[in-house]
Amino acid sequence: MDKYEHGGNIYIYDKDVIDFSSNINPLGFPECIKDSIDIAALTKYPDINYTQLKNSISKYTGLKSENMIVGNGASELIYLFVRALSLKRPIIPSPAFLEYERAVTLSGGNPLYYRIPEENGYVIDADEISNRLKEVDSVIIGNPNNPTGKAIKRKDVEYIVKEAKKLDLPVMIDEAFIEFICDYEKYQSLDLINYYDNLFVVRAATKFFGLPGLRLGYGFGSEDLIKRLEAYKEPWTVNAFADAVGRKIFDDIKFMGNTRKYIKEEIDYLTNELKKIDELVVFHTQVNFMLLKLKNQSVNDLKEELLKRRILIRDASNFRYLDDRYFRVAVKSHRDNVKLVEAIKEVLK
Amino acid sequence: MDKYEHGGNIYIYDKDVIDFSSNINPLGFPECIKDSIDIAALTKYPDINYTQLKNSISKYTGLKSENMIVGNGASELIYLFVRALSLKRPIIPSPAFLEYERAVTLSGGNPLYYRIPEENGYVIDADEISNRLKEVDSVIIGNPNNPTGKAIKRKDVEYIVKEAKKLDLPVMIDEAFIEFICDYEKYQSLDLINYYDNLFVVRAATKFFGLPGLRLGYGFGSEDLIKRLEAYKEPWTVNAFADAVGRKIFDDIKFMGNTRKYIKEEIDYLTNELKKIDELVVFHTQVNFMLLKLKNQSVNDLKEELLKRRILIRDASNFRYLDDRYFRVAVKSHRDNVKLVEAIKEVLK
Repeated sequence: MDKYEHGGNIYIYDKDVIDFSSNINPLGFPECIKDSIDIAALTKYPDINYTQLKNSISKYTGLKSENMIVGNGASELIYLFVRALSLKRPIIPSPAFLEYERAVTLSGGNPLYYRIPEENGYVIDADEISNRLKEVDSVIIGNPNNPTGKAIKRKDVEYIVKEAKKLDLPVMIDEAFIEFICDYEKYQSLDLINYYDNLFVVRAATKFFGLPGLRLGYGFGSEDLIKRLEAYKEPWTVNAFADAVGRKIFDDIKFMGNTRKYIKEEIDYLTNELKKIDELVVFHTQVNFMLLKLKNQSVNDLKEELLKRRILIRDASNFRYLDDRYFRVAVKSHRDNVKLVEAIKEVLK
Repeated sequence: MDKYEHGGNIYIYDKDVIDFSSNINPLGFPECIKDSIDIAALTKYPDINYTQLKNSISKYTGLKSENMIVGNGASELIYLFVRALSLKRPIIPSPAFLEYERAVTLSGGNPLYYRIPEENGYVIDADEISNRLKEVDSVIIGNPNNPTGKAIKRKDVEYIVKEAKKLDLPVMIDEAFIEFICDYEKYQSLDLINYYDNLFVVRAATKFFGLPGLRLGYGFGSEDLIKRLEAYKEPWTVNAFADAVGRKIFDDIKFMGNTRKYIKEEIDYLTNELKKIDELVVFHTQVNFMLLKLKNQSVNDLKEELLKRRILIRDASNFRYLDDRYFRVAVKSHRDNVKLVEAIKEVLK
């Protein structure tokens, strides 16, 4: 893998491949959006203030439009946060989503990486983060974290934010995957923005609503923080389709509940089955993807053998602190998940 | 108008207003794109390399994919160019598209503004630009320029690029409106990127293809320049719809020809009719919008009176070197253009 290469780049593979490399909702997207695809929307600029879209997100999250910013996926907001606040030295618990590092590096910064201990199943330790705050100018955490699939509890997030606040350090929590967790309420820190003005929480329609092609992300912070970000934001980055679709998806409570239930069942299935394979280390996950490790070999041969069976996995070697023994798989349809398990068993037997 | 406010923000007005404030192709968009709107495209990440889209643009322009970058409208590419090359002091012939100034200012720079002389009908003088090159680190020119509607000839662009090259200064030419010009071949500088590695040319589907809601821009430069820009680019900023639609529009030669013919006729009509109004100064334009000036009064009353008649014009007072006497109108359907003329006559009589 290239340094910042992602999963999901199926365009370089056979068309019929089952893509376990990209971690998108396997149930697809809310059906309700089909009516919102109207070509007429393209003939006008999107509302530069995204008023209706923000109202929709407001209804979904209970937070006010004034505390909200929308962007071209979570990515735009991650880059914007780093750039607008001139962050040069965030602490990033790693392995982590590669774009955090890239955003900081491109802005001329140099992150401090905190190695999330594999021994504890990749649980981020809030005390360890707090202890390092004097060495950094900000905090960036994926919650749940990608590629590890582990989340930290809301109270631990709050502890970190509170400690960071004492030193006046901004904190970004990337919750792009949080809605996949069954009891996500214990983990989400959205509404903490009402109490801590150093907190920025990012979300996206990309993963949970199964719409990576849409490019719709959104973020929350104090009114003051949002104003600072808007001052640096490029105009109209959410296109008219994303705007229209975004006004619908957050209403579909049923889709959300079904997704969480389904993910739980399939993660249980995958975990149980994959644990039976001696050569595999299976890390516990709370979301729609899981990190795995081969005990004694590079993942290259496995990846190649699986590709012959039209299965694409995510080689995780370009994540910091991981190497060529690690890989990530997404949860897909039950039928595809069974295929994955059978294929891995066959290759590793 | 706010400092960086644009036309086209119809969301704050009555729904039935005729929008002369936003300068989009009045013939709409190429019909062929209707088939490309497939919701399934949203369930995958866009091809991060946009291979097929670039092939399409390549066929249209005759330039190679390696010399090409695509973005979220021309805006993303304008900001990217400024940021990736750390431009702090470009010369910007003004009045100009407001995002040039904003991009530079947000990157901590301070443009040198060259006042395009109104006396000469807002023609940019290539010699004047060249004479100032020692004071700047780059050049940014809208060609045709917005809001003035005037273009500079290809040979003059080449002269500026050549002079800038001697001093190693990058030049960005924004050709977002160039395809509206009947004899655009005399003005476009796209293929000069094959001879000058300091040149970056930006275009967009926004204006000419009537798709401001789509957010699809594209730019051309030497392979080396494109690589430098890609190194700073945020991933997936062109969404799956824009990708799909972009693969179709550049084939529609007929739409393009019809547009140019139509714009020429309507500009002639508007120019002739508006010139009959004593209180108006009409500046000659080559594209789908025109700059106008009231001789003895602020445009505020006129704007308000026109709004009562459900016509929205673009108050141009927030463009550098213009004031509250200036306004811009777009070319619309002939029927709407007649309405505009009649309404202005009525108000100013």
